[in-house]
Amino acid sequence: MQQITLKVDGMTCGGCVKSVQKALNAHDGVTEAVADLDKKSVDVNFDPAKIQEAGIKAAIEDAGFDVAG
Amino acid sequence: MQQITLKVDGMTCGGCVKSVQKALNAHDGVTEAVADLDKKSVDVNFDPAKIQEAGIKAAIEDAGFDVAG
Repeated sequence: MQQITLKVDGMTCGGCVKSVQKALNAHDGVTEAVADLDKKSVDVNFDPAKIQEAGIKAAIEDAGFDVAG
Repeated sequence: MQQITLKVDGMTCGGCVKSVQKALNAHDGVTEAVADLDKKSVDVNFDPAKIQEAGIKAAIEDAGFDVAG
């Protein structure tokens, strides 16, 4: 299991936070995703055999948010 | 070109509205998506040769929102 923290732009309320988490948790390789509105970031625990950083970023961007950096 | 209006649950601020629109507009077959926070709905103009209602619903749900009905 691996853990990554990504900066996410565009989360402006609790609904946005839930959306980011839900979009990530829908992926098989993601075991937990916890987004933080104040820090504008998301902590993601994932199985690197099933999903990689690029896939995680794509899931966030597909949900309509921007990954910084 | 076709137009559909879908009820969307989970949009709670302008950021959510933008996310839904952005997730839909990322699809090739969607020509315009306009979400309405008060009406909790989204109007989607699309090319039925490229995307169908099921694909539009999937895009909204993949973004972490629920399509009602």
